[in-house]
Amino acid sequence: MSSVDKQLENLKAEITTELPRDISVSDVKYEGPELVVYTRDPKKFAKNGDLIRKLASKLRKRITVRPDPDVLSDPREAEPQIMDVIPEEAGVTDLDFHADTGEVVIEASKPGMVIGRHGSTLRQITQEVGWTPEVVRTPPIESSTVSNVRNFLKQEREDRRRILERTGRQIHRESLSNDEWVRITTLGCCREVGRASFILSTPDTRILIDCGDKPGSDDVPYLQVPEALGSGANSLDAVVLTHAHLDHSALIPLLFKYGYDGPIYTTEPTRDLMGLLTLDYLDVASKEGRAPPYESEMVREAIKHTIPLEFGDVTDIAPDVKLTFHNAGHILGSAVSHFHIGDGLYNVAFSGDIHYKDTRLFNGAVNDFPRVETLVLESTYGGRNDYQTDQADSEERLLEVIKETYNKGGKIVIPAFAVGRSQEIMLVLEEAMRSGKIPEMPVHLDGMIWEATAIHTTYPEYLRDDLRDRIFHDDENPFLAEQFNHIDGGEEERQDVADGDQCIIISTSGMVTGGPIMSWLRHIGPDPKSRLVFVGYQAQGTLGRRIQTGWDEIPVSDPNDVGRSSTLQLKMDVETVDGFSGHADREGLENFVKTMNPRPEKVLCVHGDERSVQDLSSALYHNYNMRTFAPKNLETFRFK
Amino acid sequence: MSSVDKQLENLKAEITTELPRDISVSDVKYEGPELVVYTRDPKKFAKNGDLIRKLASKLRKRITVRPDPDVLSDPREAEPQIMDVIPEEAGVTDLDFHADTGEVVIEASKPGMVIGRHGSTLRQITQEVGWTPEVVRTPPIESSTVSNVRNFLKQEREDRRRILERTGRQIHRESLSNDEWVRITTLGCCREVGRASFILSTPDTRILIDCGDKPGSDDVPYLQVPEALGSGANSLDAVVLTHAHLDHSALIPLLFKYGYDGPIYTTEPTRDLMGLLTLDYLDVASKEGRAPPYESEMVREAIKHTIPLEFGDVTDIAPDVKLTFHNAGHILGSAVSHFHIGDGLYNVAFSGDIHYKDTRLFNGAVNDFPRVETLVLESTYGGRNDYQTDQADSEERLLEVIKETYNKGGKIVIPAFAVGRSQEIMLVLEEAMRSGKIPEMPVHLDGMIWEATAIHTTYPEYLRDDLRDRIFHDDENPFLAEQFNHIDGGEEERQDVADGDQCIIISTSGMVTGGPIMSWLRHIGPDPKSRLVFVGYQAQGTLGRRIQTGWDEIPVSDPNDVGRSSTLQLKMDVETVDGFSGHADREGLENFVKTMNPRPEKVLCVHGDERSVQDLSSALYHNYNMRTFAPKNLETFRFK
Repeated sequence: MSSVDKQLENLKAEITTELPRDISVSDVKYEGPELVVYTRDPKKFAKNGDLIRKLASKLRKRITVRPDPDVLSDPREAEPQIMDVIPEEAGVTDLDFHADTGEVVIEASKPGMVIGRHGSTLRQITQEVGWTPEVVRTPPIESSTVSNVRNFLKQEREDRRRILERTGRQIHRESLSNDEWVRITTLGCCREVGRASFILSTPDTRILIDCGDKPGSDDVPYLQVPEALGSGANSLDAVVLTHAHLDHSALIPLLFKYGYDGPIYTTEPTRDLMGLLTLDYLDVASKEGRAPPYESEMVREAIKHTIPLEFGDVTDIAPDVKLTFHNAGHILGSAVSHFHIGDGLYNVAFSGDIHYKDTRLFNGAVNDFPRVETLVLESTYGGRNDYQTDQADSEERLLEVIKETYNKGGKIVIPAFAVGRSQEIMLVLEEAMRSGKIPEMPVHLDGMIWEATAIHTTYPEYLRDDLRDRIFHDDENPFLAEQFNHIDGGEEERQDVADGDQCIIISTSGMVTGGPIMSWLRHIGPDPKSRLVFVGYQAQGTLGRRIQTGWDEIPVSDPNDVGRSSTLQLKMDVETVDGFSGHADREGLENFVKTMNPRPEKVLCVHGDERSVQDLSSALYHNYNMRTFAPKNLETFRFK
Repeated sequence: MSSVDKQLENLKAEITTELPRDISVSDVKYEGPELVVYTRDPKKFAKNGDLIRKLASKLRKRITVRPDPDVLSDPREAEPQIMDVIPEEAGVTDLDFHADTGEVVIEASKPGMVIGRHGSTLRQITQEVGWTPEVVRTPPIESSTVSNVRNFLKQEREDRRRILERTGRQIHRESLSNDEWVRITTLGCCREVGRASFILSTPDTRILIDCGDKPGSDDVPYLQVPEALGSGANSLDAVVLTHAHLDHSALIPLLFKYGYDGPIYTTEPTRDLMGLLTLDYLDVASKEGRAPPYESEMVREAIKHTIPLEFGDVTDIAPDVKLTFHNAGHILGSAVSHFHIGDGLYNVAFSGDIHYKDTRLFNGAVNDFPRVETLVLESTYGGRNDYQTDQADSEERLLEVIKETYNKGGKIVIPAFAVGRSQEIMLVLEEAMRSGKIPEMPVHLDGMIWEATAIHTTYPEYLRDDLRDRIFHDDENPFLAEQFNHIDGGEEERQDVADGDQCIIISTSGMVTGGPIMSWLRHIGPDPKSRLVFVGYQAQGTLGRRIQTGWDEIPVSDPNDVGRSSTLQLKMDVETVDGFSGHADREGLENFVKTMNPRPEKVLCVHGDERSVQDLSSALYHNYNMRTFAPKNLETFRFK
């Protein structure tokens, strides 16, 4: 008998002892980080509201109770019973019964009303029908990404259970080493922005954190070195994804092409956004005639292997590592990742990309951890002069620019990441038009912005408190304002917009490295009355950065003849309005560290240009007396 | 056709063009780092004295010319012809013909006389008989190690040629990477003394430097991590051994158990000493009832895979790495290893263990390199107070201690490494007795000291200039002085010595971690008239260090009953005479760095206790304004 089987047998005995006599345990299994308890008495279990919580705290495990398949009622009987329990206002849009696990997935417009106060409605459902309910939200704006992901996971349910079971046994295997050390290896995004990737390793465990591309460059993380995938992709225990931007996520699916078959830990919105962005990444590559590094099948593999975690859930991901995600304030689902290693041995936090202050979309990044000895900190705006304007001032400036351009009869073109900055700007514009600060005019959303917005509205728990309330309690969803127009008619619609009246266009890509923004530059670039407004970070080597620094002759390819390219004279005004970045500025980065309690002993400054990481590293060392480093790629640091 | 075959074809054409018309080239092959040119006209080749040198400089390769096997004369005819050419005083002891390569190995007491001025005699031999002569020295003191190694290599000649050919093709393969970086990974001997081991890596190449054990501990280098052997032992391109002490060499044979099948680069004496010391290491392990980590077969594999290099020879060991050894002054054959990487990209020197000043045995360490950007520097005596007495003063003190003990009627017991310190002390004692500074008395050599001394006399080229001259030109070999007695009669002889008159005993192990010194402690330890004199470094955790710091109750195992151990009251005086160390002291280490020209940009201080590496690192930083580091084990540093 393997050590895991022995462990499960002991757990079964312990749970049986803890439970009242009349509740039987037919099986216990690991599924990913969770312990699943099968019972022939699910209804009785549900009646004892506190039982699961007590068991979980006693066993220090995350516990799910499921009915033994033998005692399940017929879905045709269960369905009306369930609908009876749920209030009609919940707006149930789908019920899906899974006899293999005894779960029923309930999709509803108002999941809160399916859950009930402290889960009371859910418990009532189980008491009535025995099935274990699981609730998901019906996207308020239809999202093909969300529905594709959900359908795909439904279809792959069996395979997914196998993956989860295998992962569960891996996580709970016996620790074999007597040695103790903690190491971080840098595979990318050191002294540069882009291709984020790290390995966190202990004698037992190797975890890959992020695996992104580098905008404006072909550089990829150093996956080929022995300490990365050199000894086989399956030598990794886990992959953790901090957020969905491509410079963190683009090459996650590639891992599966390389044979990785383990879990990806991330938040639910990051999973969906990763699906959206990586499929687009493949699409862009093939449109530009480059060989995509993997096939769309691998994106599906990545989604199938994802184990979504919620902020604050402490989760075992290896025999000696617990992972907890916290809000990072950067984009939807973005997470600061905290690793607790060994039994109190060491703690490492990876900031991922953070925004320290609240924005319209998100609460500011969490920096409150019980313990962190080493912090790996993004440094995008770590340079000594990288102070950003307050967002209030920036908004005012943006509205001024819009008014001026409007009055001249021009159009405003805003390149923006589909995910994050677009929605922030949408919120600014919606409010400004509603309150009459700028004239009402159409706001055209091009590229994947519409779809990304739909995903935002599917996961309001991840948005800023008051925005969440507006969306779901007051039916005032600002993203549904009528000014917003989804460009879904291709070049023809763009031509119409370009020929039409004043308007605002928000379009991807955010760094002008491709995508529909290229088309907008062709249409509107020659118009001196119009304006191009940058609202986000432009990495070195990108066309966006070049235009920002004065280039006005832009190579563009003919949309009707991909091979041919010509030069476009950019005559529109170019403006940069700082202060909308999804990244903390220099002050925010310092504050993130300064207000930590306790402060970390060591800080690795990464994800910034050479100057930025050096400046930040030196400032943190001098101002807060910590050991700081500005690592290069391909280095390994040992802690402990 | 592989790229290497194409390369060889081009080389053959080029060589044919360069040579006079009447000299044919029948084949060219790589054997290890050398290019072997086969010709049907070896005699003509030999007549043109300068041809090989010119070819080598033209092609920038090390070139060996061999006769095509078809044109070889019968050894029975060739032998008397060869003996005619060589002067009788050369003292030829063996002639060995190898028809497979057309080589004849000549063993002689005076190899210089076989070589002749600028190789004239060698050339004459080839002109006469066509065979290519290779000369080795007949050990002046019989050495079973040297003769075993030579016989073994003779017997394994064919297998060895296959290894060399494969290695040659590996070295000269095409470089595949466009990337450029240079990294060092620390696998041992960081913030500690013992288990020296490093990986030097580039995108193309991975080289292991040293692989030792840790005296007084079971710790071994971190070979299991992915960047070491985690991706398979054959992911290494080469192994470089700086010297034969076990803390650098003990686990080299283990690599072959793990499947390594590539070359070991080291000096010829280090190869032989490694054979001696690792076989003893296995012997000690089995005597102490520990499972040896590998079998003696693996020591033979290591010897078979060794490609010996001479000091100053610049040798291609990978497509992008050239290795040059320089005298390190520490023990026989010890080398500072200089790596030239890429085409002028970067240079790294590993000091190995060094002695900066001249000693009786060796010239001081070489620190003169065309370029070194990073130096990995031993720090054994790097602590702020680690200044050693001048050897002249130390010698005086040692002689005083000997006189005092002699006058009291006691014996002197000196624990010493078999290799290095023993011979240094022998030279001191021989001179002191010859010049009447101390009374004549027997000097008993126990453990492997005699055998190690024999190996020293086999390789006088590696000894200090004037000592070499004494041994070979003046027939004044000090190691042959009649005071020296080889303890080869076991416990019985030791008992006789212990019961006898005043004498000096030099015995292994040097750190009192086992070996015959334990027996001498039992015999002489209880005698208050006698003295135990430490003349070398005692690592933390060793019994030697404990005795030095005052322990006088020593656990000893009963020689007749291995399982039983008892406590021995140490009543003899304990004395430490510093200044004989094979290691540079703090001043020597600083001088080694200070007098380098140009100085390295970065220094990694390794191979020293925590305090020593920190002190040295900080001093070099402050005094010479270099970037210095005191790495931990398991870290990776990137340069370039």
